[in-house]
Amino acid sequence: MVLAIDIGGTKLAISIFSKDGTRIHSARKLLDGKKGAAVGRLIIAEIHSLVEAQKKKNHPIEAIGVSVPGIVWSYKGTVWAPKIGGWENYPLAKEISDGFPDIPVVLESDRTCYILGERWRGCAVGCDNAIFLAIGTGIGAGIIANGVIIKGAHDIGGAVGWMAVPAPDILNGQGKDCSFETYASGSGIKRLAQELINRDAAYNGVLKAKQNALTASDIFEAYDTDQIARTIVEECIVIWAIAAANLISVFNPEKVILGGGVFGPAVRFIPEIKAAIKKWAQPVSESLYSLEASALGQDAGVFGAAYAALRFLNHNR
Amino acid sequence: MVLAIDIGGTKLAISIFSKDGTRIHSARKLLDGKKGAAVGRLIIAEIHSLVEAQKKKNHPIEAIGVSVPGIVWSYKGTVWAPKIGGWENYPLAKEISDGFPDIPVVLESDRTCYILGERWRGCAVGCDNAIFLAIGTGIGAGIIANGVIIKGAHDIGGAVGWMAVPAPDILNGQGKDCSFETYASGSGIKRLAQELINRDAAYNGVLKAKQNALTASDIFEAYDTDQIARTIVEECIVIWAIAAANLISVFNPEKVILGGGVFGPAVRFIPEIKAAIKKWAQPVSESLYSLEASALGQDAGVFGAAYAALRFLNHNR
Repeated sequence: MVLAIDIGGTKLAISIFSKDGTRIHSARKLLDGKKGAAVGRLIIAEIHSLVEAQKKKNHPIEAIGVSVPGIVWSYKGTVWAPKIGGWENYPLAKEISDGFPDIPVVLESDRTCYILGERWRGCAVGCDNAIFLAIGTGIGAGIIANGVIIKGAHDIGGAVGWMAVPAPDILNGQGKDCSFETYASGSGIKRLAQELINRDAAYNGVLKAKQNALTASDIFEAYDTDQIARTIVEECIVIWAIAAANLISVFNPEKVILGGGVFGPAVRFIPEIKAAIKKWAQPVSESLYSLEASALGQDAGVFGAAYAALRFLNHNR
Repeated sequence: MVLAIDIGGTKLAISIFSKDGTRIHSARKLLDGKKGAAVGRLIIAEIHSLVEAQKKKNHPIEAIGVSVPGIVWSYKGTVWAPKIGGWENYPLAKEISDGFPDIPVVLESDRTCYILGERWRGCAVGCDNAIFLAIGTGIGAGIIANGVIIKGAHDIGGAVGWMAVPAPDILNGQGKDCSFETYASGSGIKRLAQELINRDAAYNGVLKAKQNALTASDIFEAYDTDQIARTIVEECIVIWAIAAANLISVFNPEKVILGGGVFGPAVRFIPEIKAAIKKWAQPVSESLYSLEASALGQDAGVFGAAYAALRFLNHNR
């Protein structure tokens, strides 16, 4: 058995998989606003309870895989996870190893887990060149290219949210050319909506009523009836398409997979995104890839963490 | 001995290397406007003459490496080289293999050869994460990431000239957001200069006199004395920086190497490019890479082709 934990900003997703890849247990645990070492203690407690339960069942946990929402500094042995307070340089691997010295633990970034998961059990099975573009609060990509996961020299590769994009036309020349994430992440979409609402004193639509607690999902839901929502979604389609097109030109992948919290609700716009990509990508590569929604959705991280643990067992035993 | 041929748009560069990596012969042969099969015949004739000469010296050629200015379709067995007329789908590997059935031949794209050459004998020795950004008539990148050359699913990876960049400010809103190559390649620079010359009826500087045969080098040379040249170079610095920054965010490399015909004359602007990259790249990755001019310069392709041939011999004998 392997234990897989996907750490999110507000919850843990925890699953147990058998060595043949069957999921035999799945649970969620809210962080309830915990920060720093308290999150570490919660993780240790959850692992402890499942490790003990599996021992009693005579199906012990043989490896632990963890998906970290940020950077796993393999050369420092620490993690950086901006959504979790106090996890700038947190010794998560050491804590888990100290707590469970007989069980190997493998940490991977969430974006690496997403593409590992999709390649193991999702829509990238058999692909040696595939990109998981994760668009949530922030934006990152899990990339497999020529059979290798692209982590870079210091495990920070895939920070595709930093790619430059032209300022959206809807800002009428008042926006600056900026990183992709600034405009087209979940946070960016909310900021854009706020800006358009503020600019139009006459606007009195559904987003105005929600503006103090607006979410990206609200904006996608309002697409069919609200002009500001429609304007923002159309702009995001272009920006997502430019980012995907850049990656298609650079990597010549078989698949680009759209996932993360925004896909979700934005999945219905995939045909429009695909049409916009055609204007920007290297044309031969553009004619040879497919654009798909994540097959695993919210489970991509935990499947990837399980695969990382299983891969470790297969390579090391 | 291995024979290395770097095919350019106007000439062949041909070298012989011993198996310990020493270059023992180097020559250039002009294409003199040849196209299609005539270029193939010239290559065969050059190989023939060197193969026979080396046989007589009792140091036979044991493998041939070829750098192709375009795409090597390994799954089709043909090459696409837009600078050479009629080479849309040219069976170069078959021609060479038919001519020299006892000598293995390895074809690689020029961008793959550039990074292979720099990693073997240039400024990326020992690097598992490095990018050769080749800026010439067009723009491409040779990329090694996590130890693997990034070719993609169909050998078209590294087409970084297609990445989107904001329209240059100097076009005063009349330029469109476009691919990096449109503005900042050798051809793009010439087009931009033409546009600025045409817009300013009062302009009577050095570029005006040369405008019918303007080269990118002319523009770099005029930087210190001519306002249009200075404006274009400053714009290119930003565009090159955005492209390099995108690649730094995506790949987290140890090195970004600037090469191709433009670097060359633009090497003096590397400090300004580095400063501009800082504004755009993922900040941790930006703090951990170095920006350098190609150490091999015009020899990068032929060194890379030689390395590809030597690597083949080492893996297959």
